[in-house]
Order: sequence, then structure tokens, then C-alpha cells
Amino acid sequence: MGTSLKIITAKRAGFCFGVKRAVDMAFDAAHKNGKKCCDVYTLGPIIHNPQVIEKLKSEGVQPTDDIDNPKIKTIIIRTHGVQQEVSYKLSQKGYKVVDATCPFVKKAQQYAKLLKEDGYQVIIIGDKDHPEVKGLMSYAGEDVVVVNKDDGLPHLKSRVGFVVQTTQPLSVLKKFISEAVEHVKELKVFNTICNSTALRLKETKEMAGKVDVMVVVGGKNSANTTQLAQLCNSMSIPAYHIETALEIKDEWFSNADKVGITAGASTPDWIIKGVEKRIRDIGGEGS
Amino acid sequence: MGTSLKIITAKRAGFCFGVKRAVDMAFDAAHKNGKKCCDVYTLGPIIHNPQVIEKLKSEGVQPTDDIDNPKIKTIIIRTHGVQQEVSYKLSQKGYKVVDATCPFVKKAQQYAKLLKEDGYQVIIIGDKDHPEVKGLMSYAGEDVVVVNKDDGLPHLKSRVGFVVQTTQPLSVLKKFISEAVEHVKELKVFNTICNSTALRLKETKEMAGKVDVMVVVGGKNSANTTQLAQLCNSMSIPAYHIETALEIKDEWFSNADKVGITAGASTPDWIIKGVEKRIRDIGGEGS
Repeated sequence: MGTSLKIITAKRAGFCFGVKRAVDMAFDAAHKNGKKCCDVYTLGPIIHNPQVIEKLKSEGVQPTDDIDNPKIKTIIIRTHGVQQEVSYKLSQKGYKVVDATCPFVKKAQQYAKLLKEDGYQVIIIGDKDHPEVKGLMSYAGEDVVVVNKDDGLPHLKSRVGFVVQTTQPLSVLKKFISEAVEHVKELKVFNTICNSTALRLKETKEMAGKVDVMVVVGGKNSANTTQLAQLCNSMSIPAYHIETALEIKDEWFSNADKVGITAGASTPDWIIKGVEKRIRDIGGEGS
Repeated sequence: MGTSLKIITAKRAGFCFGVKRAVDMAFDAAHKNGKKCCDVYTLGPIIHNPQVIEKLKSEGVQPTDDIDNPKIKTIIIRTHGVQQEVSYKLSQKGYKVVDATCPFVKKAQQYAKLLKEDGYQVIIIGDKDHPEVKGLMSYAGEDVVVVNKDDGLPHLKSRVGFVVQTTQPLSVLKKFISEAVEHVKELKVFNTICNSTALRLKETKEMAGKVDVMVVVGGKNSANTTQLAQLCNSMSIPAYHIETALEIKDEWFSNADKVGITAGASTPDWIIKGVEKRIRDIGGEGS
């Protein structure tokens, strides 16, 4: 380590298109009419990043799980989207609804609905406990099947249609359509995977091959940040998953010439910048 | 070899559903009204078996490639089907058309048409020089793509639909849909593979593992019989591809206790029976 420590930040570190849009919409809702509101809620935490949630709270935007909360005037739907019946209930309540569902997730919901209406048995690839998948399921009809990467397919009807949780890897989609085509006569696939996750992983992998230490920035509760950290840990260099610059220790860089920084889709730019500054202070240069 | 030579004939040896139906239709057409006709033609040889073709000729049914032949009164379309425009021309000519297209091929043609009408770019998996595939192509629209097992996919539109030559293996379909789903947003697959070929191959493989010699019966110009022979040749026992019992040599069985007989989809029962009888005469028993 020394003043020669070189810092490289991934181009794709941080907010993806859908998250940036949702966070902007939340801050906009907070500052409506030039003054802070105090009756604006997000249905669940808007993204998996505690620091952003705290910042929004300080602006008057609270997360809530209770849609009957009498204080609500404006409710923000997060990027993952919600179940069809929740969406209906919110509008019945007379709230102002700010729909920050990621447009790619919205499309997947519409495809699930379309498949159901065309008489297909809908198969959703993803984590059945994830809010995005719960939302998709509500559009997919009663005979919907949800499968995650290590599952096998159950007995299927003769016409099946696939939609995919937007953050799934392509390999899992390939596995399931290969398996399904053995058993069905007709198969329709909407490839609803958003390539933002895949591209971020690819860039991180390439970067980890060129540096001495990797720093992965993002919520410990963020699935996609954790995936980045796991990828780095599987490589032959030290890698650290942190939420903010405060967790950084000087000795991590004592044998390093080059350090790489990457961040999940829910990590805001100001936290990434803070991490860069902290490492630069330790002895790094530029990026 | 000796009187103890045991003969086992595959349950699925010989005519598949579509071929049996077509050959029956051809003989029926020949014997219409209780007397032989002499103005009945098949458009190309009705199946890839020279002995069946000869037998039909002796009944007055000739193969022809010339649809303008003035002698034609009745024309028989073979199992592979024909191009849409040929079908149209035949009806314009005023011929009596006996459509012996395999019902599974007919379905694949309808699916190709449906995909085209729904705006998909149609991809046909199969041999572009095979008459079945030429027929399918005529229903599939101008931007149709034909790919065979070792090909790669060209640049595709964003919505593609697959149909498959009925005799293709499932592994090839899996390969192409896996490749396509990387590049397109929407994929529709009609699995038009007829499992008759796969089941016959499976049974032949199991049989070849249990006998000392395999005899594969069928036209040397029959693709599916040749496939059976290649499978047997890839195993560790002697295997012989013959068209009729006349080709059999006694010495093939000199070190054998068990002989297996299989036959392609275009091999008639009377030829298989002739082969069984010839081997029984050499020294075999039962089946």
C-alpha cells in the first residue's frame, strides 16, 4: 500500500434504470409543491438499501406494510411491483398512487396476464418469496407454477408459457425450457430477464481478475449485491462486502496496488463516492 | 450357431402410423371399385422402400414427378406432404387428390402457417432438402429460416416461432431453443417431433445391448432405417443393414446365440416376416 494505490470503479456500479427512476419518484413525492410532505409512504422499503431508506425517512417518506394506515395520503409502489389485488385495494382507498414499478417488471406482469388469457399454464421462474414473483403470480392464473433454479418441473399441461423474474440468470431459463419442451406440445417464452444484472456481474468478474482487492458496496439485505460479493469471494483475491465507507479498514489494502469497487443496483451514487473518497484518503489515486 | 439361435423382433419394427395409413390409401386407390386402376400416380415415391414401390407398380400405381402428366386421373400425396402451391396446382388440374400426408406433418404445416399469421419469424429445424421441410417452408412466410443440427442460428427478429421436422431428435430442438432465447424477447415453440422415431431408436438400442447380432431391415435410401443401422454399428456387436431376406448370409450367425431384428418406419411387415423366416431356417427359434 502507498500513495500509488490505484482505484477503479465499475462503470455499472450502482442504481439500475428501474431503481434510479423509483428513488427519484420517491424524492419527488416527498418534495411535492416545494415543501416536505408527511403523509407519503412506500409500500415496503423502496429498495434494499438501509441508507437510502434513512435518507427518505428524513425527508418524510416512511415505509409501511399496513395499507389501512389512516395517515397515508400518497402511497408509492416500489420497483418490484405489487399483486393485482393490492393495486386494486390501493386505488379503492382513494390514495394518490405513485407507481414506481420497474417498467421491465410491469412488462413481465402484462406477459403473465396475456399468457393466462391465451389459455397457457403459466410458469414463473424465480423465488416464490420475492415480492416481484408474488406480483407476477397474481397475474398468472390459478394453475401457475413457480420454479427456482434447483427445482424440477411438476407435471405440466400441454400448453405452457414462461415468464422470468427480471434478475434471474439466463442459464436457469435455458434449463427449464429444455426440460419443459420434452413434455409439452406448445411452449411460449417471454424472456423478461433484464440484462443489467448480467452485465454488472460480467464487469465485476472481469474487474476482479485485474485487481488485488475488491470492495463490494451495497445493502447486506440486497440479493444482487450479495450475488456480486459471492462472485468476488469465489475468485482468488480478498473481497469485502460493505454498506458504507465507515466499515473500511486500512489493512485491507496493505498488500494491494490496485483496488476495484463495484456496487449493487440499489446502492446510491453518494455512498459509492464516499467509499472512493475513503480509499483515496488511505492512499489511493484517481479512478 | 445352431438350432438354439434365438430371434427377437422389435415391437416397433416397421410401419409407423402415418406410413401405414399412406400405404393403405395407395392400395385402396389402386383397387377402387374392385378393379385395378391404371391412372393412379403418387407424387414421388410414396415411401423410401423399393419393394413397396415395386408392389404398388404391379398394382398399377406409378410414382411420377411430373404433375402435368396427361395420364393422371388420381394423384396421391405422400406422407411428407407437399408445398402449398403444389397442393393448389393439383386441385386446379381437376385431379382426384388422395392426401396421404401424415396427420402429424399436416399439423406442423398448420402451426407454421399460424406462426406466420401471428407475425412470428418462423424457424424450421430440419433438412432443407427433405420434402417434408420443403412443404413446411411454403407455409412459413418469406423470412423463414431453416436450420439443421450442426448449423448456428442467423440474426433473428425479436419474435420467433419454431416448428420441427417430425423425425428430428429432441436434442436438436433443445439446442436451438437454448440458443434462440439468448437473443430474442419472445419465443414460441411447437414441438412437432413424432416420438415414433425416438421410441424405435430407444428400443433398438436396448435390444442391441442384449443380443449378439443385429439385423436392420429397410430401404438403403430410408433416412430413419439408416439411422437405426448407424446406432447399431456404434455399439459393440455386428450389425447388418439389409433391404430383404435375400441379402442374409449364414455366416453372420455362426457365433451367435441371440439375434435382434429391427426395421425402419417404411419397411413393410411382409419383408420383416421374410427376414424372420430366413433366419429361422438358418437355425433360429421363435420370436
